[in-house]
Amino acid sequence: MAHTDISTLGEFGLIRHLTQDIALTNSSSRYGIGDDCAVLRYPDHDILVTSDMLMEGIHFDLVYTPLKHLGYKAAMVNFSDVYAMNGTPRQLTVSVAVSKRFSVEDLEALYAGIRLACERHHVDLVGGDTTSSLTGLAISLTCIGEAERDHIVYRNGAHETDLVCVSGDLGAAYMGLQLLEREKAVFNRKVSDEVAAQPDFSGKEYLLERQLKPEARRDVIEALREAGIQPTAMMDISDGLSSEMLHICTQSHTGCRIYEERIPLDYQTAVTAEEFNMNVTTCALNGGEDYELLFTVPLTDHDRVAALKDVKIIGYITKEELGCSLIARDGQEFELKAQGWNPLK
Amino acid sequence: MAHTDISTLGEFGLIRHLTQDIALTNSSSRYGIGDDCAVLRYPDHDILVTSDMLMEGIHFDLVYTPLKHLGYKAAMVNFSDVYAMNGTPRQLTVSVAVSKRFSVEDLEALYAGIRLACERHHVDLVGGDTTSSLTGLAISLTCIGEAERDHIVYRNGAHETDLVCVSGDLGAAYMGLQLLEREKAVFNRKVSDEVAAQPDFSGKEYLLERQLKPEARRDVIEALREAGIQPTAMMDISDGLSSEMLHICTQSHTGCRIYEERIPLDYQTAVTAEEFNMNVTTCALNGGEDYELLFTVPLTDHDRVAALKDVKIIGYITKEELGCSLIARDGQEFELKAQGWNPLK
Repeated sequence: MAHTDISTLGEFGLIRHLTQDIALTNSSSRYGIGDDCAVLRYPDHDILVTSDMLMEGIHFDLVYTPLKHLGYKAAMVNFSDVYAMNGTPRQLTVSVAVSKRFSVEDLEALYAGIRLACERHHVDLVGGDTTSSLTGLAISLTCIGEAERDHIVYRNGAHETDLVCVSGDLGAAYMGLQLLEREKAVFNRKVSDEVAAQPDFSGKEYLLERQLKPEARRDVIEALREAGIQPTAMMDISDGLSSEMLHICTQSHTGCRIYEERIPLDYQTAVTAEEFNMNVTTCALNGGEDYELLFTVPLTDHDRVAALKDVKIIGYITKEELGCSLIARDGQEFELKAQGWNPLK
Repeated sequence: MAHTDISTLGEFGLIRHLTQDIALTNSSSRYGIGDDCAVLRYPDHDILVTSDMLMEGIHFDLVYTPLKHLGYKAAMVNFSDVYAMNGTPRQLTVSVAVSKRFSVEDLEALYAGIRLACERHHVDLVGGDTTSSLTGLAISLTCIGEAERDHIVYRNGAHETDLVCVSGDLGAAYMGLQLLEREKAVFNRKVSDEVAAQPDFSGKEYLLERQLKPEARRDVIEALREAGIQPTAMMDISDGLSSEMLHICTQSHTGCRIYEERIPLDYQTAVTAEEFNMNVTTCALNGGEDYELLFTVPLTDHDRVAALKDVKIIGYITKEELGCSLIARDGQEFELKAQGWNPLK
């Protein structure tokens, strides 16, 4: 029997390969695989469904991730997918598999984080599964949200001349991860030298918080609604700006031009990137896990979107044949490429 | 920090511990943790949601479980939970985490099984997640179903004098597992003796099929509907008849009397139990994974339910203070105890 290595397809290639010819047959199945959420349509309203799976050693490292933070982040990541469709998260199911090294107190901490996230976003924990694993911790969540039919925003609705916008700032979660990984390495060395290790993160708290305790941007969704702006396409940034921008352009059959100088960066992200000898733009483009919103709006909404707090216009949508490009600070043009995190590498 | 071993609480104790004080706040959250599915209520209809997580080495052994069968079973188990609420499964999300030893062809086989199950039950695969794990295979599924409001059957509706009914026959899936485990042990011994191993399952095909390829009982739900019978309580048998019967009685605040001689058994189950020196009633009571339906109906439905194909009346519901008892063939009375499979042992 043939044995094709999964890494040859990559995550998105694999999903496409396994699901490409799936036809939806139920009248309530409005939209299936290919966006932040599936959409179920009922006579009086639409329902959004999104699922995520997090595996120890792949998605999180318990050496520096407190279980409460892990639970909080796992829930937030799912809420973020619902907001990215312009919906409101309502219910969550959580399935957890744990090995023998985990205690009841560990699970209490994990659930405390999940429940805190649920409280903050008014989401009900309605079900799930609790079981054991041979090694490590596995968490799977499914979030169900509601949306008004005409308000749902897919990835495929961007049009030529639309403005490309992003909330918050980018690359900080990635720099936070680099810091944690560096301190882990230092700690491991020190422990082997039998010297007590005490990581020093002073001044970098923002980066750690972005990595360990991301916040889903309900506030941005609400601000857009209040401003009367209906994005034409939207998704949340989990794999990196480049990767997500390419998803929107591919699915919308458009190109785009993104201006490097307009990409929002926090001061600490820039300082720390320099410390690590990294290009800060590369971190912002490919870092991932920012859970900010990337969206497009009609050009006519320029003034309204420009007035929004914590939202920046970073470029615009072009014809498909013009491709996706990044305009560097010096005016040079580069092709936008997805080098985002690949969970199947 | 305290370290309480999870096994001291058990699966249901742990879930209760982690979720006991959860209050539902959204108007659409009708029923949360504690039944086969959560129930979401919308103006014109109700939605059922159920999640399951399956871990390699805990829930399945790939030595004797073909991946296509595994996918089929994983989906069926979730459909079964929706039928157990008297609903119709409509959508499924599937999250899969695989280690490097799995190929694209392996995942194709897994998805082929999932998709076959979906086709047979007219369920749409609408989403999920595909990622990697450090060791082994993890599968998490969430099934979404529809139900007419007045038709949903919970576990907590059984009343004194109700008849206790069960579909199909019990214990066969468990005996199938024993056979597979025995042949695996034989195979391992033979391989070490460098003798080719060829398992002989002739005449036992039914038991293997019950273990490897269970069928969710949509037919029973449809038969009940056609006969105009609305069960007062219902659940599917995944952990064993005893365990599920106790769930219904606890949640309904009733007792029950189950008659050993009425528990439906297949001939092969009985023969194989004898071969293994096991008590066949114990297998039927505690075996699990039969995915048959256990339900209660009002006494007035006696003739209608007795006329149903593949359904047997095995006892009746009593006052709570009478407890839950099994009446043996010789008339002796035993307390019904849950010795079902514990995934957290």
